[in-house]
Formats: sequence, C-alpha cells, structure tokens
Amino acid sequence: MASPEQLNRYSLLDDQSGGAHPALLKALVAANTTQETSYGKDRYSESARQRIRRHLGRDDVGIFFVPTGTAANAISIAACLRPHEAVISATSGHIIARETGAIELSGHKIIHVAPQNGKVTPKAIQQAIDDHWHFPHMAKPRLVYISNATEIGTVYTKEELTAIKQICQDKGLLLFMDGARIGKALMSKASDLTLQDILELTDIFWIGGTKNGALLGEAVVVKDPSIASEFEFYIKQHGSLIANGRVIGSQFAELFRENLYFDLSLKANLFAETLSAGISEAGFTVLATTETNSVFTVLPWDVIKRLQEHFVFYIWENRGETEAVVRFLTTWATDATQLDRLVRLLNSSS
Amino acid sequence: MASPEQLNRYSLLDDQSGGAHPALLKALVAANTTQETSYGKDRYSESARQRIRRHLGRDDVGIFFVPTGTAANAISIAACLRPHEAVISATSGHIIARETGAIELSGHKIIHVAPQNGKVTPKAIQQAIDDHWHFPHMAKPRLVYISNATEIGTVYTKEELTAIKQICQDKGLLLFMDGARIGKALMSKASDLTLQDILELTDIFWIGGTKNGALLGEAVVVKDPSIASEFEFYIKQHGSLIANGRVIGSQFAELFRENLYFDLSLKANLFAETLSAGISEAGFTVLATTETNSVFTVLPWDVIKRLQEHFVFYIWENRGETEAVVRFLTTWATDATQLDRLVRLLNSSS
Amino acid sequence: MASPEQLNRYSLLDDQSGGAHPALLKALVAANTTQETSYGKDRYSESARQRIRRHLGRDDVGIFFVPTGTAANAISIAACLRPHEAVISATSGHIIARETGAIELSGHKIIHVAPQNGKVTPKAIQQAIDDHWHFPHMAKPRLVYISNATEIGTVYTKEELTAIKQICQDKGLLLFMDGARIGKALMSKASDLTLQDILELTDIFWIGGTKNGALLGEAVVVKDPSIASEFEFYIKQHGSLIANGRVIGSQFAELFRENLYFDLSLKANLFAETLSAGISEAGFTVLATTETNSVFTVLPWDVIKRLQEHFVFYIWENRGETEAVVRFLTTWATDATQLDRLVRLLNSSS
Amino acid sequence: MASPEQLNRYSLLDDQSGGAHPALLKALVAANTTQETSYGKDRYSESARQRIRRHLGRDDVGIFFVPTGTAANAISIAACLRPHEAVISATSGHIIARETGAIELSGHKIIHVAPQNGKVTPKAIQQAIDDHWHFPHMAKPRLVYISNATEIGTVYTKEELTAIKQICQDKGLLLFMDGARIGKALMSKASDLTLQDILELTDIFWIGGTKNGALLGEAVVVKDPSIASEFEFYIKQHGSLIANGRVIGSQFAELFRENLYFDLSLKANLFAETLSAGISEAGFTVLATTETNSVFTVLPWDVIKRLQEHFVFYIWENRGETEAVVRFLTTWATDATQLDRLVRLLNSSS
Repeated sequence: MASPEQLNRYSLLDDQSGGAHPALLKALVAANTTQETSYGKDRYSESARQRIRRHLGRDDVGIFFVPTGTAANAISIAACLRPHEAVISATSGHIIARETGAIELSGHKIIHVAPQNGKVTPKAIQQAIDDHWHFPHMAKPRLVYISNATEIGTVYTKEELTAIKQICQDKGLLLFMDGARIGKALMSKASDLTLQDILELTDIFWIGGTKNGALLGEAVVVKDPSIASEFEFYIKQHGSLIANGRVIGSQFAELFRENLYFDLSLKANLFAETLSAGISEAGFTVLATTETNSVFTVLPWDVIKRLQEHFVFYIWENRGETEAVVRFLTTWATDATQLDRLVRLLNSSS
Repeated sequence: MASPEQLNRYSLLDDQSGGAHPALLKALVAANTTQETSYGKDRYSESARQRIRRHLGRDDVGIFFVPTGTAANAISIAACLRPHEAVISATSGHIIARETGAIELSGHKIIHVAPQNGKVTPKAIQQAIDDHWHFPHMAKPRLVYISNATEIGTVYTKEELTAIKQICQDKGLLLFMDGARIGKALMSKASDLTLQDILELTDIFWIGGTKNGALLGEAVVVKDPSIASEFEFYIKQHGSLIANGRVIGSQFAELFRENLYFDLSLKANLFAETLSAGISEAGFTVLATTETNSVFTVLPWDVIKRLQEHFVFYIWENRGETEAVVRFLTTWATDATQLDRLVRLLNSSS
Repeated sequence: MASPEQLNRYSLLDDQSGGAHPALLKALVAANTTQETSYGKDRYSESARQRIRRHLGRDDVGIFFVPTGTAANAISIAACLRPHEAVISATSGHIIARETGAIELSGHKIIHVAPQNGKVTPKAIQQAIDDHWHFPHMAKPRLVYISNATEIGTVYTKEELTAIKQICQDKGLLLFMDGARIGKALMSKASDLTLQDILELTDIFWIGGTKNGALLGEAVVVKDPSIASEFEFYIKQHGSLIANGRVIGSQFAELFRENLYFDLSLKANLFAETLSAGISEAGFTVLATTETNSVFTVLPWDVIKRLQEHFVFYIWENRGETEAVVRFLTTWATDATQLDRLVRLLNSSS
Repeated sequence: MASPEQLNRYSLLDDQSGGAHPALLKALVAANTTQETSYGKDRYSESARQRIRRHLGRDDVGIFFVPTGTAANAISIAACLRPHEAVISATSGHIIARETGAIELSGHKIIHVAPQNGKVTPKAIQQAIDDHWHFPHMAKPRLVYISNATEIGTVYTKEELTAIKQICQDKGLLLFMDGARIGKALMSKASDLTLQDILELTDIFWIGGTKNGALLGEAVVVKDPSIASEFEFYIKQHGSLIANGRVIGSQFAELFRENLYFDLSLKANLFAETLSAGISEAGFTVLATTETNSVFTVLPWDVIKRLQEHFVFYIWENRGETEAVVRFLTTWATDATQLDRLVRLLNSSS
C-alpha cells in the first residue's frame, strides 16, 4: 500500500495487488537472454499462442496480447463494430461501469440492459433489439458484451451461454466475452463450461492475465479470420502494441504450458469458498452463493471499521448509517492465515 | 527471431529486441514480494516518480507511466488539445509515420511540416500558423510535436529548442517532446541540453523506457497542474492504466536510482560511433553525422544481401536497383564483437 | 407521405411534416436578392442574432445556427466537454434514444439516469455523481442534458430548473438545454419560465426552428465567451456550417422579428389541448396532463386500426394484444377540422 | 456583405454568396403545400433521386442528401473506412485544407500526397501505398479522395480518371470524388467526362448543390448496396439528417428536372472564360488555363488595393511586397457588367 497507514493492513481488495506468480517471473527472466523480433512476433509469444490454441483445441484462431483489460475491451469492440453499430451490455458491465468512457472514445454507443444476477439474459437482448427499431434514428445493435465471471462474481452456465449465442445468431449479433476472470469462471463449481465451449459459443473473447497471476497482459482470441488479419492494426492504433512482446508472451507461455492458469484460478475460488463459509458461520449474511473469488457480505459499520484496522477491502454499497455491503476478493496469492484472522475478528464482533 | 531463417542472424534492427537490462529485471523481481496498491499508486512507482523528480530538479510535476510510446503520444496530445485544435509535426514524426492513425483516432488533425535534418524549425512552425489563418475552416494550431532524438537520430541543441519554445510562447502553442530516445539525445556529443533544460523548455514530454533497457514503459512528465490532475482519466480511457503498476514503476525506480538510464543511452551511442567510424573506414558513405544510436549508410544491394545472411537491419530507403540506404541501430545490449564482424564483412566487400 | 397508401391520410406524426410557415418562406425569398458574406456572416443571420438577443434581454451571448437538432446537441456537448468528461441524461433523452450514437461519435460517454415524468431531477443528478466516485476508472460527470419540453411533452417549472441549476453549480456541472420544442415549453400553461429565465439558469441551450415552423435550423445560445469564441470551429468540424447562412438566418430573423416563434408554439399547444379534451370526452384515457403539443392516449388495437385508415400517428408503446399507447402531435399547421374528424371517429368507436 | 464597408463592393469571392437560383426557390415554395414524410422520405426527395438516377443512367444506386460539402465528405469517408484505414488526398484537397479536421474527428488518417496541377496522380497513389508498407505500424491506405473540379479549378480527363480507377482496382482502394463543383467540371472545355463516366469510374461521389444554385445541399451517390443500405445511419449520426427533407429534395428535383444543373455550371464557366480573356488582354498573367469558374491571376499590390475598393475576392497567395496571386470566382449569378468593370479597372491600371 502506498499510504503509510495501510502498511500493516492486509489487502483483500483486488486481484492483482499481491504481485505476479513466481513461475511467471522466472519465465520472464529466462526469456530475456535472446534477441527477439519485436511487436509480438517473438518466440515466446508464438509459443504462448500455440499453447493456448492447444487448450482451445483449435489451430485456426488469432491470438493477440494486449496490456490491459480496458484495452482488450476497447480494441475488440472497435474491431467488431462499424461507427453506427452499438454494443449491448449489462449496466453492471465493466465497459459501462469502470472504463472511463473507453468504448465511447472509439465512437461507439453502449446499449444498457438490466443485469440478472450480474448476467445478460436473452430476454434483455431481445428487449434491446425491440427498443432499437427506429431506423436510422437509433444505433444498430450488433454486439453483445458479457463478462464471465461477471463483475459480481457469478458465472454463466452452458445453458445460459448457449441461449445467448442462439439469440445472437438469430438476430445477427456478435458475442464478445470479457474474460478478465475467465479462469475463475471455468473453475467455479457453478460452471459446466469448458474453454472449448466458450470458443465455440462466442465470436471473440479474452483470457485475462492481469487478474490471474501475470504482471500484466490479456490474450484476445479472435475467430473470424477477416477480423484477425487486421487486429494488430487496432492494437497499434490504440497504443497497445508492446514492443518487447515477450514481456507478456513469456508469461502466457508459462500459464498455459500445463494447467497453471486454471490452478491459480481454482486456488482463488477455494479461498473465497472458505472465507464465505467462515463469514456465514460467524453469523453474517453472505449475498448470493459465492461462485468465484469474490465474497459479498452485509456488515454493520462498526464491524467494518474494526476490520479496516487490519484489512483493506471494497465498500461495495453503502446501505445507510447502520450497514454496508463489502466485497472481499481472494486470489491465488491470498494468505490463508489472514482469512482465519478475518473470520476470528468477525466472530468476536458478532 | 520468430522465423527459423533468422535464428542465426544478429539483429541491429531496433532498440528493444535485445531484452531488458538485468538490473531492471532484478528490481522487478524484488518488487514482487509485497502487496501494493494498484493502478500506479504502488510504492515502486512512487519511488520512481521521486527519483525522476530529483533528476528533473523540480518537485511539482506530474509523472505518469504508460506501456508504450504510441500511448504516451496519443494520451499526451489528447490531454492538451480541444477537438478542433491541431498538432504540428514534421512529416518524419513518429505520430505521422509510425502510429497507424492513433492521434487521428482521438479526433485530432496533424499539420504536416517538412523536417530539416529530421527536426522541426521555428520557420516551419511559423509557416504552419500562416497557412492556417482561415477561421473556422482550418483546424487551429495549438501544439508542436518534436522528437528528441529525432526519428533519424539527430538531436536538438539548446539554441534550437529555445527558439522553438520562443515561437510557441509567442503564438500560444504548447510544446510536446516525444522522448522515446531522450537518453540518447541527452548523451549525444551533439547535444548541450540537460534534462532540466527540457523540462524548462517544453510543456509536456516523456522519458522512454521501452527503447532504453526497460521491458516496457514510458514516463510522461506534465508541468501544467490542471492537465496533470486529470491525466489518469486519459490514461485509463485509452486502455493504458496498468493494474499492477510496479511492473513499470520498479524499472523506472532502478533506471533513475542513480544514472543507469543515461549510462545505457551513452553505451548505445558509443557503439554507434564505433560502427559509424568502421563503416566510413571501410569506404562506405555514412549519411550525416551519427549523433545518437542509429547509423545510416548507403550500400550496394549485393553488399546488403551478403550482410543479410548474418545480420538483421532496416532497409531505410530503396534507391533503385543498385543501392539502398540501410539503418543499423545499436543499444546498450549490443555485442561489440558483432559490430567488428559487421565491419569486417564490409571491408571484405568494398 | 411518400408511400401511395398514405396519400389520403392526415398526419399527426411529427412537428415538421406540414412544411414551413409561409412568412418564413416569404422572408427567405426576399433575402435571396443580395450578395451576402458566407458562413453565417450574412446580414440576415446577423439580424436574427440581434432579434434573438433582444428577446433574451442580453447583448453578450453567442448565437450560432446549425441545420439539425442532433447537430445542435452533438456540437454543444463537444464544445463543453473534455474527452473523459460525461454528460448526464435521462434515459428518455433524445441524445440517448434518437441520435444514433452522435454523442458517442464525438467520444463522450452519456450517464443514464431514470426520468421522472420525462424530466431529470436533482436527486438523479446527485445519484449520478455519487455513482461516479471512482477516479480514474469512471468518466467524470461534467454536463447535465435536459430537454424542455421533454421528449414526452412535459415542461420544467422555474422551481425545478432552479433546483437543477443549484446542484449543477454546487457540483461543478454545466447545464445544457435541448430546446427542440422550447417554444411549446414556454407557451405551456404548466410553465412559469421565460426565455430570460432559461438564459439565466442554463449555460448553453438552443432554440429549435425545425419543429416550430422553419424549413430547418436551430439557434444555439452560448453564454461562456471562451466557448462562444471557438464555437464555429466545432460547427465546421461537424459538417454543419451552412455556406449560404441566410437560409437559416432569414427564417430566424422572421421568427423573432416580433412574436411569431411563440405564436406558432402556442397554436400547436392549443390544438393539443383541444384534442386532449376531445379524447377524454370520447371516453379514452389521456396519459398525464397535456402540457405542450403531444397527446398520449391508450387505445384498443381495433380503434387504432380504424384510425390508421385516416390518420398517421405514432405507436408509442405496444401494450400487448389488446391495446397500445399512441401519440398525436399537433403543430401550428394542424388542420382543426382533422382533429374534429379524429374525435368523431373516436366517439363512434367508444 | 455583413460589414458596412463591403456594402458597395461586388463579390467574386465564392460560389454561393449570390443566393439561390429563382427556379429552385419557386420549387421550394411550391413544395411547401403538402404534408410529407420526414427525414428524406418525402415525395420531392424521391423525385429528385429518380431524376438524378435518370441522368446517371442507372436505377440501382443510393442517393442521399446532406446539407454541406464537409458533411458529404466526412460521412462518405466514415461509411467507407474501418478505423485503421486511411484516405489518400492531395495536400490541396478540401478535406486537408478547409475542413477543420472533420475527417480526423471521425478517427481517420489522411495520407498527404503532392498534387499535380491540383490533381492526384496514379504515381502519387502508388507512392502512398509504397510508403505505407509497414504493417501494423502504418494506417492502411483504402480510399482515394479527389475533387473534380479540383480546388484550383482544374478538371480530370477521362484518361486521367480511368488511370486512377485502374490503380485503385489493382490495389484494393476505393475511389471517392468530391463533387462540390462537379457541374463546372463536366461543363469544362477541358473535360471529356460525362456524369455516367463518373458513376462508372468511382465508387462513391457527390453532386454539389451549395456551389451551383441551391440554397444548400449535396447529393451523395453510393454504388455499393451494402454501404447504401446503412448510409442513413451515418447521416443521422453526423447530425446531418434534415427533418424536412423537401428543403433539399425540391431543389435537386428542379436542378435535375431537365438540365438546369449543368446550364448553371456552364454559365459560371463562360463568365470565367470571358474574365480570363479580359485579364490577359489587360496585360496581366493568368495562371494556368481557366478550366472552370475560377481565374487565378498575378497582380501587383497597388492594383489589388484599387480593385478592393470595388470588389471582394480572394488573396490566394501572398508573394511578398510587390505582388500576390488572387482568385476571382464566377457563378451562374455573376453580373456581366461587373466583369466588364473589373477588366476596365485592370486596363486602366496596367
């Protein structure tokens, strides 16, 4: 923590404040000894692509590395849409709620739909289409944006994703998945999806490194060859083409060498499950089932204040003078003893 | 090199294909052991800022880290201009020649002026102003973009930069310096500028890490407090706000702990000087004086082809069937024995 | 109507399908006999500006003519905002609902708030501010967009507008009013606002000609001299600077020579009032009080179908198989006998 | 003229300061008596489209009306390009020189090429392609923008246009013609092109009304059905969809009812020819052959100053203290006696 008063507090605030996984750093250092072609054409990025394709079970998809999730979203959407075409998103979607207008900066309208348990539904998509009938006075819906896991940690089932894919196909919409926490989604007990399913059921999606053990970087997977062949133009134009590509490539090569990517996600999920159980047992309400690595709970303000002496976490929703919803986020790097300490504090507060 | 046939060739193609400097990797690994606040508020980024400010001799400037040079340019320009305001650049400028329309993507017009020895001149600025008199039919010149070192490796003298600053002030223009190779510029024998001079004489500039030993990253220095206070909005909106800020911060902290940043640049320049001398002695024409780390030379195509069996370099300008201008780029990581080998090949070809 | 089957139907669909007011055409023809300076510097535009300023009671405001309402909105918003700054609008607002992403095309995010009776409330503005606390991950609220009359024909009272102005001032927001139907708003029985009040209480607003008797054109009123002095740049850049400015100027000069602008609006309102009463008396539900020139009523589908044989109007909201909400719009040009005929048809249907 | 001192001076400054042709005003007034469908679906616009199609000799092209030339350019280019694709233009092109960055506002880069006699050449196009080889660091050339007549009044021959079309086809480029003065080009003695040729040899072009007798308006002709079907989205998004479409439609219906459009252009050209001859006979240098309605001549400053007491015209290029290049523009509305007076003044000055 930058501020002195935070120095002795343990953070359960976000996915990345604990640093990168040591195996990735080791891979990065090992990758530093050779001369490599720049701009993503290095051998490490190429190896990472091959390994991700092996996990995807398909050789013919474009895979592109970008430094941030916002870049992955903005670039993917720009590559899919014409200026008058709009993207449909839940109001809780990252592109509406946390990206400072990055999508609009590229000129695109976002059509807002109400989420259900954090998710976009076929019914909401149909409504968005119905509401945008008035040619040419309304932007044309053309792309559906979903996050998996969602911004509140829920996951799509295969049935849900298939239903969304179905309406997209019927209505001429493309489907785009923000995979900032795709590993946690796939490793969730609530999920019956595989990475291959996601490739099959979406048109474009990305695999998040930033929130899953990497120093930085996301891998965008593009199925349509006509979009893939021009995708690097978009990356460059958005200022996201890393000169020394191995900085991301070597990390993804390690994440997908075997199963590290998914192991790290599973670990984060299990910590959340443990914490969720501990909070319930301490007598506090956990909101919804904990499906991935976030635990939402309702706590009285005095308890929150006591916890804040020892922990950093997110005040998700202020519910007035007596209580608030807080979010605890666990990661592969979470210290189990800190979770115990948190639960002990809650037990002594209830 | 990614392609098999390149595996045994030594690259003098660009500034970054040799990887990062070991001291930076070491600093990065060392920075990985703590929990840190995200989005550039970590202690390593803060330390980097303090150290850069110490080199700048001023405490009151904003310093912001972004992943690429194109991002540094696009974000800085977006932060300085209103939509109808234009940036003046030499036609050889990176924002015109090598950024896939990143500036235009943000909606800004670039006014083209002819470079003189790679540089923008006060006369060219005056001409651009004179040519854009027709309110409101012409975009309003508001910012001058210069690169130091320039895209062809030349550097601005203090007199030149002062003259540019003067006309900018007189005409209500801001001055922006692309510092992708600012270290090489400052370490050039042809330069009498200091980093403090540059701070004094420009409104906004950046210090390039990508091309000077870092894995990635550039540090944008912003003097105007009203621009600095909103600058992170722009970074985020452009998809360039790195979540785990220490990935860049720790490297800049090391680069500016003492003088590593400048030492690396000096090394690159000296290699170029050596190479330049060798080429001349071998009887080939070196174009202009080698001021930084690029050496431009005119070679017959048969010599070029022979060199290409052993080296990778840039065909800068095709001059028809008999000869071409090629560019050799040296870096802090250049292997001196490879330069010897190159010169020997030239000697045996002349 | 373009389609043959519509030829014998009377339109109550929109504000402009009846053509321009004869006095404006006469003024336009009269203005055609001289040579005039182009691009809005003609004597007719200048006279229109003087006359509007007289109605406004202030000499020191910029007045600019643009061809369409969408241009007026997009240009005004672009002139007020920096790229990372957002505009707050009711979800029913024209800029969200009917402009094909014109605001986003200029790079700006629109923050959606729920309307209350078609209007933006201080509470909704406060909520939007509260929700956008997360620097720099969220666009910065900077401008509030309201329409008066609103898109459903309601009007702001002086108390309501004053309260909005107050929160805007307190929170550093600018206030922008879309005046496509500002005449109807000011002539509404529900309104206690004057044109001077609107000038006083907003930062920028426009006076719609297109929907109030003109062939085309809107007059944007800009108070801030620093925005006004550059406003023509924006108009030109958006492709909205009419070369032969008198085409709009001569019409506005006539509209504001005396009180024609307001007389036309009043006429439209009175027709709506008459129609609204007739519909109620025929036993059908009029939704909300008719405040300006639109009448919303709930009709069974069989009645709608019978009406459609003789009239063109807007199916505002499909309420399933039995009924729908329809909108009738009256204008200064509405034929009173057609309203009688409509009411007779309704009486014979009830 | 707006300024008092200009009141007694005759303008040879631009194409539109003389007002609209009376026949168009008459058509416009006649069109005002009916109710019409809005947004370009009125019977007058439809009739104008049919008549233009008859002149074009093809039924299957999209024709769209927009209020200004800058809108026609910006919308057409936005409809043709993806964000990373660039348009090639002569540096003298209107989109570079006189549109305040309207193309860049939509996010597109313009590649500058040197004009030859005001025109783009196949060689210049080839050079632009050759210079933009560096994927993905350079925007991708995709569209060639030409003006006919050019900004300096020259015209393309059929051979020239065919050669441009050829290289465009070979290289996968689209060809777009700005037809602000297309009538004058077609009526030029130097032209062997027909309107049908232009349709055949370009992908998209527009027919300018603003500079040829209309109050306002340009007609964009779109051949590609996939662009045409979405074109109104672009018009609306750019704020250029006129609600009361007949304001432009009725004028174009009259311009193309028979041959008025071309008659007006021919008249303008003939006046220029007369003036050009008069200037030569008076002993002053006319620059290049006068091909359309602009006459460029070199005059001493004292002569210019004397002329300025009686005429308004364009100082095209300041050539220092002794002389300047001035431009006289004639139109269908030019008063022949004023041209006589101008020549007499020149004769008395030489």
